[in-house]
Amino acid sequence: MHFVVIGGDAAGMSAASRGKRRSPDMMVTVFERSGDVSYSACGMPYNIADPHRGMEDLVVRSADAFRAKQGIDLFTGHTVTRIDTARRTVHGIREDGSAFSSSYDRLLIATGASPVRPVLQGIDLPGVMVLKSLADGRAIKDALSRGPVRRVAILGMGYIALEMCEALAARGIAVDMVKPGPALLPWMDRKLADAVQQELEARRVGLHAGTVLTAIRRAGDILRLESIQGAIDADLVIAAVGVAPNSALAADAGLALGPSGAIAVGEDLLTSDAAVYAAGDCADAFHVVTGQRVWIPLALRANRAGWAVADTVSGELTRLEGVAGTAVFKVFDLEVARTGLTAAEAADAGLDPAAATITTRSRAHAHPGAVDIHVHIVGDRRTGRLLGAQMVGKEGAAHRINAAAVALHAKMTVAAFAQSDLAYAPPFGPVWDPLLVAANQLMKKL
Amino acid sequence: MHFVVIGGDAAGMSAASRGKRRSPDMMVTVFERSGDVSYSACGMPYNIADPHRGMEDLVVRSADAFRAKQGIDLFTGHTVTRIDTARRTVHGIREDGSAFSSSYDRLLIATGASPVRPVLQGIDLPGVMVLKSLADGRAIKDALSRGPVRRVAILGMGYIALEMCEALAARGIAVDMVKPGPALLPWMDRKLADAVQQELEARRVGLHAGTVLTAIRRAGDILRLESIQGAIDADLVIAAVGVAPNSALAADAGLALGPSGAIAVGEDLLTSDAAVYAAGDCADAFHVVTGQRVWIPLALRANRAGWAVADTVSGELTRLEGVAGTAVFKVFDLEVARTGLTAAEAADAGLDPAAATITTRSRAHAHPGAVDIHVHIVGDRRTGRLLGAQMVGKEGAAHRINAAAVALHAKMTVAAFAQSDLAYAPPFGPVWDPLLVAANQLMKKL
Repeated sequence: MHFVVIGGDAAGMSAASRGKRRSPDMMVTVFERSGDVSYSACGMPYNIADPHRGMEDLVVRSADAFRAKQGIDLFTGHTVTRIDTARRTVHGIREDGSAFSSSYDRLLIATGASPVRPVLQGIDLPGVMVLKSLADGRAIKDALSRGPVRRVAILGMGYIALEMCEALAARGIAVDMVKPGPALLPWMDRKLADAVQQELEARRVGLHAGTVLTAIRRAGDILRLESIQGAIDADLVIAAVGVAPNSALAADAGLALGPSGAIAVGEDLLTSDAAVYAAGDCADAFHVVTGQRVWIPLALRANRAGWAVADTVSGELTRLEGVAGTAVFKVFDLEVARTGLTAAEAADAGLDPAAATITTRSRAHAHPGAVDIHVHIVGDRRTGRLLGAQMVGKEGAAHRINAAAVALHAKMTVAAFAQSDLAYAPPFGPVWDPLLVAANQLMKKL
Repeated sequence: MHFVVIGGDAAGMSAASRGKRRSPDMMVTVFERSGDVSYSACGMPYNIADPHRGMEDLVVRSADAFRAKQGIDLFTGHTVTRIDTARRTVHGIREDGSAFSSSYDRLLIATGASPVRPVLQGIDLPGVMVLKSLADGRAIKDALSRGPVRRVAILGMGYIALEMCEALAARGIAVDMVKPGPALLPWMDRKLADAVQQELEARRVGLHAGTVLTAIRRAGDILRLESIQGAIDADLVIAAVGVAPNSALAADAGLALGPSGAIAVGEDLLTSDAAVYAAGDCADAFHVVTGQRVWIPLALRANRAGWAVADTVSGELTRLEGVAGTAVFKVFDLEVARTGLTAAEAADAGLDPAAATITTRSRAHAHPGAVDIHVHIVGDRRTGRLLGAQMVGKEGAAHRINAAAVALHAKMTVAAFAQSDLAYAPPFGPVWDPLLVAANQLMKKL
């Protein structure tokens, strides 16, 4: 059995490692386009925040270790350019321009996602950067070290943009954030999004929502972002407007695509070809609430899907249940978390959502140090089912969201969830957990 | 309708308030033995820790507010001494020694629990105190203020004992903890209990497990705790060896009792008498994992049961699902949490438990500030069901336990729980949440 993996990031290396561990006799080959494998991509903003840490800190395991200690045939600097599903062969090109090809018995496509570069005059100017690969992270960190960088403009206001904003602020850099849409975190309940906005404003971040840029121009040492609202000057620009799945290779091979152009896979992670799997940010998943295909590229799913493919090719057919879209990020001192559907997503999926938003305290009555926790919770009027939750607070939001995530997997009603026996102690929350307070309020609307 | 409540603490005042709010025409009478109602009992150790805070901070709502603003006939200093279920009447005695009686249509017994005083010579000496009521808290705080108190001995090593230990240490007082049993937190997995023990030792707490006291004697200004292992001297002794349900009143009235002598109630909180409910620390509950009756006195259940009784007497029959025994407490910098069954409890309940214990980090690879998180997880070999979990760590344990608690309510298998889409971001945990790492390990044993 020859198991070939395209892409040496979270899903790819998880699959290769676990496959080799489970089936030592299996030949496992990985082709990775870049020189980096197995690094904590999500850790890059936090690494960039600290000029004293090397970017190499983020490497979990080196390519050499995969080769020498695990017996994986790992080829970095190898870009696969074509998959021939009929002949079960991949073709590609090395860094030196030479061609290579390899047959496979089972193939995993784990090509990840790439940052979207806005279509904008000047987007290719030097000093306009993106953050996705470790090479991108090194380039940003180098630019900051070369300095002087006093002002950075970030295109986008999603979670990577917000994490980068915090990282730059930690280095004493003034940040302006720019997006064409009118709202910060448009998927979020307005009360919760306002709490995030207040945190950003308190940190003196320049927020320019509803600003449609017309061009980026170099003016001497600075980059000038032009819009009808006026100009924003910056020493450096980071584009973080989102990512798109790297699915062209799969599409060219005739494999079916799903939402957002991600590679469509079943619960068994199989593509439309019976010998080809896809996992990680290039592939879609079923949503546990709607059962519909969604593309929500997140690290845990990538790792889990890599493992599942490895188990399957090792002879133990493994199916994944689906994703709840559970996510958390930090915005300065705020924890921001979500799971499941927003009310708008629920309505789009044909459900009949009701929602409640509450604010409670993060610690018990009279306990010192308490701060606000905001909870937004969504349920279905027809079935009573819990559909989703969002939380924002300076403490107690990040891990609490998991209780709601498990309830979504279990397809619990809001009423059943509201009966959950959750933990209480004065330093950690009120007697009624904020999620229960929210569920109790939502029940009145169902 | 006349709704009479015995006991003005969490369950009693929750029921009275909600009953009056839902049914303004209903006559609601509360008889409370002490002068205090509606206070945060769990907050007492944290209040005692701070000499500058008044104990009255913990009062959530005053007796006068319940009377004037909510129209509840609240009688403090009224001790009910007899329930006549045949005549639907309660009889009692006031602080001044005079007698009172009241008829009822529906009665709620919410008499709570009382601290167990060890049977020990000298246990009634001045300076040997307990902590349960607000009056107890005031007495301890007064004794500390009068001082000088340099050394306190705590009888017991349960969570109230540990919270008091931390409170006293915060005031610069040396603490010795004494118990006859050999193990700290005997219900806990040894690896996790060792982490708690290390934290206590690092704080220079004297731990005397396996020490059977023979007497407490006064020797001049000090109290001497005598045992065959030697003597421990203290300026003050606090007995925190556990609590027992205040169910004598119910037993005398012929009502059925359940485990640990708590008042037996159904899912509807009814006792064995069709007009008498019981809620809070005096009553038992069904365990969501075993379905068996258990007595686990905790604040959330008390509040929830009070509400449920109020809803039922207001005409909306309300049943409670049961408890998972989810609990959390803080020991200096450690968060200690549990939910569901231990392996020993599972075996006692006729299940076939397997367990796994893992240690992981509280933040992502290479993220600064990470500390150890220990997780112990229990599943059933026969059914694959998740049975319980325990967590210890300096961060990330308190709220994470709730995900496992919800899974217990949903009767999830370990395999299904292991598929949960939990939140990930580098400041808040590794890609695979510690609970998922533990579940993955446990699956190998099921």
